[in-house]
Amino acid sequence: MAQKDSLEELLVQAVDAAKSAGEIIRSAFYQTKLVEHKGEVDLVTETDKKCEEFIFNFLKQHYPDHKFIGEETTAACGATELTDKPTWIVDPLDGTTNFVHGYPFVCVSIGLTIGRIPTLGVVYNPIMDELFTAIRGKGAFLNGKPIKVSSQSELVKSLLATESGIKLDKSTLDATTNRINSLLFKVRSLRMSGSCALNLCGIACGRLDLFYLLGFGPWDIAAGAVIVAEAGGVVFDPSGKELDITTPRIAASNPLLKEAFIQALQQSE
Amino acid sequence: MAQKDSLEELLVQAVDAAKSAGEIIRSAFYQTKLVEHKGEVDLVTETDKKCEEFIFNFLKQHYPDHKFIGEETTAACGATELTDKPTWIVDPLDGTTNFVHGYPFVCVSIGLTIGRIPTLGVVYNPIMDELFTAIRGKGAFLNGKPIKVSSQSELVKSLLATESGIKLDKSTLDATTNRINSLLFKVRSLRMSGSCALNLCGIACGRLDLFYLLGFGPWDIAAGAVIVAEAGGVVFDPSGKELDITTPRIAASNPLLKEAFIQALQQSE
Repeated sequence: MAQKDSLEELLVQAVDAAKSAGEIIRSAFYQTKLVEHKGEVDLVTETDKKCEEFIFNFLKQHYPDHKFIGEETTAACGATELTDKPTWIVDPLDGTTNFVHGYPFVCVSIGLTIGRIPTLGVVYNPIMDELFTAIRGKGAFLNGKPIKVSSQSELVKSLLATESGIKLDKSTLDATTNRINSLLFKVRSLRMSGSCALNLCGIACGRLDLFYLLGFGPWDIAAGAVIVAEAGGVVFDPSGKELDITTPRIAASNPLLKEAFIQALQQSE
Repeated sequence: MAQKDSLEELLVQAVDAAKSAGEIIRSAFYQTKLVEHKGEVDLVTETDKKCEEFIFNFLKQHYPDHKFIGEETTAACGATELTDKPTWIVDPLDGTTNFVHGYPFVCVSIGLTIGRIPTLGVVYNPIMDELFTAIRGKGAFLNGKPIKVSSQSELVKSLLATESGIKLDKSTLDATTNRINSLLFKVRSLRMSGSCALNLCGIACGRLDLFYLLGFGPWDIAAGAVIVAEAGGVVFDPSGKELDITTPRIAASNPLLKEAFIQALQQSE
C-alpha cells in the first residue's frame, strides 16, 4: 500500500472532509431550512445533499478507484452492493430531524470498509465540536484524546439508548414500544438523541452503556462500528449473532454487558 | 422595591450562583463520581449536595428574608410548602443520571417565585455552556440573545420530548410506554435527554415543539416555566388545566400546538 493510501493518510483526508462538511452544517444550523419530505417523518434537506456531494467529490479526487455508498445517492439510485474493494460509506448529515429542528445532536459520519470490514471511522458533531476517530487496530479518539467504553457490568446501572424510529406503522411501532417497555424494567434509564452515529460514539466514550437500533442504513453505522470496537466495545446483531453492516440491525455495549444485553433484547421480543 | 432587590439585580445574583455551581459541575464531570443511591434509578452525588449548599449560602447572604426550596434539602427534610413570599426553588444538578454517566445534558436550575408565580428563571448547562435566563414580562434569552418558541402548528411535524421516569413499578411503566406509543403515531419523533429543565429550555428556544413529564419536583420546573412563558410558549397541566408547580405534572409547547397536544395527551391515557 503506497504511503498516500496508508490508513493514517486516509484518516487525515476523511477528517478534512468531515470538518469541511461540518462547517456547511454549522453555518446552516440556525438558519431557516429548506425541507423536503422523503416520508412523513424522514427529512432530507439541501444541506444533506450539499454535504454528500462535497464529501464524495473530495474523496473521489483523492481516491478515484474507491467505491462510494451514501444515504442520499443510495436513496436516489437504489441500494449499492458492498464489495471487497475499499468503500467509503457516508452519512453526510446523521440526525437530519435534529438539524431541521435545531436540536444539537447532528453529525457527519464517514466510514471506510476494506474487504467489507469497517476499517476507519470519523464522526464529527460540528455543533458540539466533537470529533470521534478510529482506525482498526489503532484505538479510538475524541478530539485527539483516547476514549474507552464504560466499565459498567450491571444492566440495572446501565444507561440505554435507542430511537423511536421512522416507520410509524402500527405493528412496527407497537413492537418498538413493547421492546422499550421490557427493557426499561432492567436498565437505569433511556436516552433518545436522534442520531445513530452519535449513539455509537456515546457507547465508545462511555457516556452510554447500551445501544440498539432496528431500521436504518449502513451509512449510519459504518464509522461508528469501528469507533466502538477500537474503544474496547462490541457491536453485534441484537439477536446475538455477528454484525452484518448491510442489515438494519445493530446493538453495541462494552464486553461486560454483552451477554446480559442480548438476553434482555431476546426477552423483549 | 429597593434597587438591590430589583428583578434585574436578582437575576444577576442568580446567574452568578448558577455559573459558580456550573463550574463545580464542569470540573467534576469527567472525574469518577462518588454515587449514592436514593433508589435504584435516582442518583445523588456529592456534586449535587455541594452545588445546592453553595447556591443556598450564596443567595441567603444576599437575601436573608427569602425562602428556599431545593431538591436535596427537601428530600432530606420533607416537603416545603410554597408561600407567597419570594422563594428560590433550586435544582442544583438537573440530570444527575447524565452527570454520573458523563452524558452532556446536565444543568443548574434556579427559579424564583413571588406570590407563588414563577418570576425569574436561570438554567445553565455548564458542559455545553448554554445559559437560559428570563424575567417575567421581560423576554427569554440564551447566552444573552433573545429566544422564542417554534412556529410549528402541526403535531405530525413536531418534535416531542419526554422522559422514561424514575419510578419503575409495572403500572407506572406500562402507563409511560402506552402513552409514548399513542403519541408516536401523531408526532414526528421523540427525544429523551434526561433533564426536565433542559427540555423546557428546548421548548423555549424552538429545538423541541412538545414536552410533557409526570413525576418530578417543583425544583425541576420553576425556572424553566418562566423561560418557556417569556419565549412565547405555554406551560400547562397535561390534562389541559392550569399548571400548578407544586404538582408533578407539566406540559409545554408553543401556543399554536397547545389544543392539539392536550387532545393527544388525553387520548394517550
